[in-house]
Amino acid sequence: MSPNRPDRGFARAEFEARTERAQQMMHAQQLDAMLLTSEAQVRYFSGFLTQFWQSPTRPWFLLVPLAGKPIAVIPTIGVAGMRSTWIDDIRSWSSPQPQDDGISLLLATIRELPRRFGRIGMTLGKESYLRMPARDFKLIETDLSELEIVDCAELMLKLCSVKSEAEIDKIRYICELTSDSFNALPGFASAGQTERDIVRAMRIDLLQRGADHTPYIVSASGPGGYGDIIMGPGDRRLDDGDVLIIDTGSVFDGYYCDFDRNYAFGKAGDIIKMVYDTVYRSTDAGLAVARPGVTTTDVWLAMWKVLEAGGATSNDVGRMGHGLGAQLTEWPSLTATDRTRLEAGMVITLEPGMDFAGDRLMVHEENILITDSGAELLSKRAAAELPIID
Amino acid sequence: MSPNRPDRGFARAEFEARTERAQQMMHAQQLDAMLLTSEAQVRYFSGFLTQFWQSPTRPWFLLVPLAGKPIAVIPTIGVAGMRSTWIDDIRSWSSPQPQDDGISLLLATIRELPRRFGRIGMTLGKESYLRMPARDFKLIETDLSELEIVDCAELMLKLCSVKSEAEIDKIRYICELTSDSFNALPGFASAGQTERDIVRAMRIDLLQRGADHTPYIVSASGPGGYGDIIMGPGDRRLDDGDVLIIDTGSVFDGYYCDFDRNYAFGKAGDIIKMVYDTVYRSTDAGLAVARPGVTTTDVWLAMWKVLEAGGATSNDVGRMGHGLGAQLTEWPSLTATDRTRLEAGMVITLEPGMDFAGDRLMVHEENILITDSGAELLSKRAAAELPIID
Repeated sequence: MSPNRPDRGFARAEFEARTERAQQMMHAQQLDAMLLTSEAQVRYFSGFLTQFWQSPTRPWFLLVPLAGKPIAVIPTIGVAGMRSTWIDDIRSWSSPQPQDDGISLLLATIRELPRRFGRIGMTLGKESYLRMPARDFKLIETDLSELEIVDCAELMLKLCSVKSEAEIDKIRYICELTSDSFNALPGFASAGQTERDIVRAMRIDLLQRGADHTPYIVSASGPGGYGDIIMGPGDRRLDDGDVLIIDTGSVFDGYYCDFDRNYAFGKAGDIIKMVYDTVYRSTDAGLAVARPGVTTTDVWLAMWKVLEAGGATSNDVGRMGHGLGAQLTEWPSLTATDRTRLEAGMVITLEPGMDFAGDRLMVHEENILITDSGAELLSKRAAAELPIID
Repeated sequence: MSPNRPDRGFARAEFEARTERAQQMMHAQQLDAMLLTSEAQVRYFSGFLTQFWQSPTRPWFLLVPLAGKPIAVIPTIGVAGMRSTWIDDIRSWSSPQPQDDGISLLLATIRELPRRFGRIGMTLGKESYLRMPARDFKLIETDLSELEIVDCAELMLKLCSVKSEAEIDKIRYICELTSDSFNALPGFASAGQTERDIVRAMRIDLLQRGADHTPYIVSASGPGGYGDIIMGPGDRRLDDGDVLIIDTGSVFDGYYCDFDRNYAFGKAGDIIKMVYDTVYRSTDAGLAVARPGVTTTDVWLAMWKVLEAGGATSNDVGRMGHGLGAQLTEWPSLTATDRTRLEAGMVITLEPGMDFAGDRLMVHEENILITDSGAELLSKRAAAELPIID
């Protein structure tokens, strides 16, 4: 049975609510406005959903003032599209124009905004970057010297980390159809094919099930295990005794899933079965612990204890899960030191992984929603035993 | 007949040649090193090709010194992959680590480099952004106060704009198979389908022909024409008398095509036929003019004259073509004022577009290689008359 496809887009009330929540946080941080430059940020407040960000040439700006609706300062090529959103103050310039790519228009727009605190937020800190030339950022700082430019990265990370029902529906849908595709994989993957063949077949399967596209789908394989999880697919041909992992971030209406599945070909040895079981139980431990009030570090510890008892010595991934939604990976991170308190409405991944046999890895991943009563699986739980493809 | 698939990856000599060319230019600009942070830049010098850049969480750094091989300063999750490239000096830290996400390791590495000019290049100017927190960029500037940080955006744009034979082979291959897919489209698209249906079918067709993936595929349609070229596909159902455009950037081994095709459904009126013909002849004018020594502005002018004679009054796209290769759009831009001199080995798009009937657009696009003798088409030329899908 195919999962129910949610409506595309959002009701206007969604953007009003996002903007209001942001403005409350901006008030607390004494910001007159936030100046945003990245795809996910511009989309969050406007609903402007386009693949055109693939072109790195032109900068795009969205101003969120302390009161009222966001203001778009964008290249003319985007005006027709931005007009279809709830934004009505749209200012544009013909871009590319390297001498002044929107900067004077942006500065004039910022100068029109009411001043209360004399502070403008930009995302300067963790997990952020400015999608504009650094030279132009300096120009803004210099030209607006009467204003203080302060970091609002954390504000934005926190704001976006708690999802609305409508956002969760989109993530749940892409998680469900991707789970179905993983479950169907033994029907279209077999020994003798290359990693690239299998990944291509899964891309097509995901499209046929209703995914919009698959920006991320990597694989790794090897006899008895794999040693890397971000480089594939390669041209390696699957053989009896191999273990294959596929990890995918597929998208529906701008929202991602991000989880993986492992498969053995022909047969599975005792070591790989044992390691799979350890990492599976580690995920269980994370599922049992994750709930509002508990920290990312608590969840990390619960998962790590199981891995360590199973013989893990390290984890090159650097974390064992992260936020998820409008981007493949979002704040927070499940690490030993992150200590972010989970809240109802957060969508995160549980991604325990361990080394074994020297240079091998075993990584599992599930996507969950934090609810008032605990963790709700959005992905369909991986098989308790390593699936074998005959 | 399927086009011949080129080998994946590059010979080591390719990276040596790229590094040497860069070092010559660095010498002229008196740079001790370049510090690079973006996907295309890191890949250009290392060959490190991964979809993992979809995760915005972790910064990645590549240092190109004035002599010798590049040095990677990267999260541990990338070490296994980077080891498979020609880079051998790989330094890593466990990321994410918001308090110090690689910055102290990066600073220590920069301090080890030989000093001759006391200047480090970073891409700060046009068509660039730093894929790292702006706060950390400031830390680098402050901490390395004995060094001057200068803009090397133009150096990198120029360096990457002239393609090697191996790069051109990859672009030619993706252009050819995408041309074949566009030519096959009338066989899988028909009135009654939605834009989204048709784009999904074309995604699958591209995968089946050998594209690795399609990061960019937009569509627009409407009775007698369309008014936007970056927002779709939408759920609009194609009907008799509609005009549909699909524009795609598909990828083989990290290299893009970027061109579009127009189709009419059932019938085409005189106005749309005339506008199609005008834009087609505008492309011809560009093809006739483009060659080494001619500027982007000359090509723009040649194309614009035909459009203006055909009744064009404006072009919201902001340019009529651009560089192409490791990214969907690269420097330079074909505008009235760009004035970049074309060189043999550059791959660019010709993308004339015009407004008509108030709010309608007609855009064509071809991908070409600049050769010693002129322009060589990499895409198979669009039909001289607007194709009609019955």
